Amino acid sequence: MRVLGIDPGIAIAGFGFVDKLGHKLEPVQYGAIETAAHTPQETRLRQVYESACALMDKYKPDAVAVEKLFFNRNVTTAFAVGQARGVIILAAAQRGLPVAEYTPLQVKQAIVGYGKAEKRQVQEMVKMFLKLAAVPKPDDVADALAVAICHAHSAVLQGKVDEVTRR
Amino acid sequence: MRVLGIDPGIAIAGFGFVDKLGHKLEPVQYGAIETAAHTPQETRLRQVYESACALMDKYKPDAVAVEKLFFNRNVTTAFAVGQARGVIILAAAQRGLPVAEYTPLQVKQAIVGYGKAEKRQVQEMVKMFLKLAAVPKPDDVADALAVAICHAHSAVLQGKVDEVTRR
Repeated sequence: MRVLGIDPGIAIAGFGFVDKLGHKLEPVQYGAIETAAHTPQETRLRQVYESACALMDKYKPDAVAVEKLFFNRNVTTAFAVGQARGVIILAAAQRGLPVAEYTPLQVKQAIVGYGKAEKRQVQEMVKMFLKLAAVPKPDDVADALAVAICHAHSAVLQGKVDEVTRR
Repeated sequence: MRVLGIDPGIAIAGFGFVDKLGHKLEPVQYGAIETAAHTPQETRLRQVYESACALMDKYKPDAVAVEKLFFNRNVTTAFAVGQARGVIILAAAQRGLPVAEYTPLQVKQAIVGYGKAEKRQVQEMVKMFLKLAAVPKPDDVADALAVAICHAHSAVLQGKVDEVTRR
């Protein structure tokens, strides 16, 4: 199963494709969609949408996992992030891809096993899980890979639950 | 000039097309895009996007005007409204339509001439400006028409400014 993790944003949206092969995780591709400041928001939203479409068409994920809202951000930021999130989720919906959402708490619990883990700890675990030479930069990319791993882990667990249920 | 006013939302998004003919305003079509509760958000976003595309293609507006954020709403609501707003603005961007944003304060000032006007006053003025038999329901539709009128008025004023500047 191939998971696309997304850390949405209008200036920068992190993305990470991760393959789950049995219980192993492998990074496929990761990076960031960036748009230029001082550009009309409708142009930036279109750029985010088109980049998301192109990435999904190239790397063909089976599922998309997106970071859920940050309660500590302000309303103006929430609107801007929400708009970027909307066009990315639309791209997934148009391709029939299931979209899962995880809060930062859930991501931290899945990656570090501790909901109050620090950002740095999460990033180190992402590096370890994916056998990367360094922590991916900027933070948005590491966050996107983290949410992809979180979904892959959940899917592994879900698989185990199914196995147990079937016995 | 034909303006499409939008009051975005995921459960219900009000829309209103208004023609500005000289200094006269005429309603063309108005109503609401609604999506069913208990439906995955990606499906609802896709429905909002497809409805917005269909409306823009049918009524061919020259400009789109959208209500800007409500500072008094909470972050969770802001995210959901932001997502719906994102896919509507994307639909406009894909058609090369300019997108203008107005705060509720600006809309009230443009319609009633008073930024602290009550919702009911705005609705009565919308009814009067467009010579409607009754206030459009639900509120989202009246709000969408109000933002369309606000943009048409701004465009009229902008025209006057241009005239004065040219003398």
